[in-house]
Amino acid sequence: MISSTSNQQVKNIAALQKKAALRNKENCFIIEGIKLFSEVPSHRIIKSYVTDTFFENLSADMKKKVETSPYELVSDEVFKKMSDTVTPQGILTVVRRTVLPVTEIIRDEEKTGDTVKSKSRLFLLLEDINDPGNLGTILRTSEAAGVRGIIMSRNTVDIYNPKVVRSTMGAIFRMPFTYTESMEETIELLKSNGIRIYAAHLKGKEEYYRKDYRQPTAFIIGNESNGISEAVAQQADELIKIPMLGRVESLNAACAATILMYEVMRQNIV
Amino acid sequence: MISSTSNQQVKNIAALQKKAALRNKENCFIIEGIKLFSEVPSHRIIKSYVTDTFFENLSADMKKKVETSPYELVSDEVFKKMSDTVTPQGILTVVRRTVLPVTEIIRDEEKTGDTVKSKSRLFLLLEDINDPGNLGTILRTSEAAGVRGIIMSRNTVDIYNPKVVRSTMGAIFRMPFTYTESMEETIELLKSNGIRIYAAHLKGKEEYYRKDYRQPTAFIIGNESNGISEAVAQQADELIKIPMLGRVESLNAACAATILMYEVMRQNIV
Repeated sequence: MISSTSNQQVKNIAALQKKAALRNKENCFIIEGIKLFSEVPSHRIIKSYVTDTFFENLSADMKKKVETSPYELVSDEVFKKMSDTVTPQGILTVVRRTVLPVTEIIRDEEKTGDTVKSKSRLFLLLEDINDPGNLGTILRTSEAAGVRGIIMSRNTVDIYNPKVVRSTMGAIFRMPFTYTESMEETIELLKSNGIRIYAAHLKGKEEYYRKDYRQPTAFIIGNESNGISEAVAQQADELIKIPMLGRVESLNAACAATILMYEVMRQNIV
Repeated sequence: MISSTSNQQVKNIAALQKKAALRNKENCFIIEGIKLFSEVPSHRIIKSYVTDTFFENLSADMKKKVETSPYELVSDEVFKKMSDTVTPQGILTVVRRTVLPVTEIIRDEEKTGDTVKSKSRLFLLLEDINDPGNLGTILRTSEAAGVRGIIMSRNTVDIYNPKVVRSTMGAIFRMPFTYTESMEETIELLKSNGIRIYAAHLKGKEEYYRKDYRQPTAFIIGNESNGISEAVAQQADELIKIPMLGRVESLNAACAATILMYEVMRQNIV
């Protein structure tokens, strides 16, 4: 049982919560709370930290899951030091990342690593999304809408940021995703695989719902303030518009992505 | 020019940022930044506070707008004390509220107070939404989708919370909204005005896109954790479902609202 907040592990966890570079170096990320713990595949658990009171009150199943991987009991005070949340539950887990190449995400097969692929051929390309809540929400909605994979530009917010992880509501374990060094090359790769690329853009002439999405489709969603870059927009097969009334200049990025994904779902089910 | 952080006005602004009860008592709220300032109707400005450097760099138009209402120059240090943001711009304004009764929101007329009503007959009923970002985003998307009015249950998060105000991106000045003491009575009132009430609900049998929304429509959106209460769900004309694949248990409340609003828009334009 760790009861000193100056313990090296405690300091390391606190640093992992804050520093993307350290998370990258250690190829891991942190999940908090019993809901996410119940969803993480056991073989990806590096180590769990649990307060003794929380451990005692766990269900038999969850206790067993904790015990089958490395874990350590810690005091409440220590846990508070390690947690990223204001009211911590009492369990956090360091989880190994799985890295997917773009080619694997777009390939037609049922499984990609731990993630079961959607049968749909719908993809999202995120260019420089920078709000953690938006990225997490996009992952959550993508799973619900049957998106097959998400490809993010290098300057998109770190998907392993604790706020992103929380707001995915578990989709981080189930949605295939990857970062790309070159969005331009990725778009060319998708095109050469017969995937049609649409960019939601203020210059789009036709409304999104006038297109036929019963074929392999990818949507590019741009940065919250600047939208899609000129270079990337030019690569799209079509610019589409999401109509907006009133004096609204743009929609929230997660809302825009949601509208597009659910239109694809509607067309494919109806 | 105010340069002391112990000035009574400075303390009052800082308190208004934090305390909903004080905002209620003074019948006001605070907006920050030049974008929101440029959108507030002048007759609703109670007082603006501007740093001297920010004031000097204002455009002629904006300088004039500041000067036509009560305002005060303040030091950078004082402004930091009053601001709710981490990197304050240098202008904040105390704004008078306008209170609308439900009857006025649903009445057929072109204007309601300052707000120009949408021609659509689409309404949102929000039951106990508690995340400020969600509420702000719902207002923003509602304006874009042509929603005519938003009616919130008493326990919905305070719409004048600085985080909500920020995330509306100005829609707070343009979307007609009100709180209701009794959601039950409000729903009955809407029904008696020929508005059909749909509740997005896990028990919904038919998908949302199978309904005809080319008639007066209201959607009930429930609390982020608990959904729509049993009593309110029973009042709905129909429970509808938003299909979800994967293992997602629910959608983010703002995303769910967005899907429904944009389906109405699609049906009414196509």
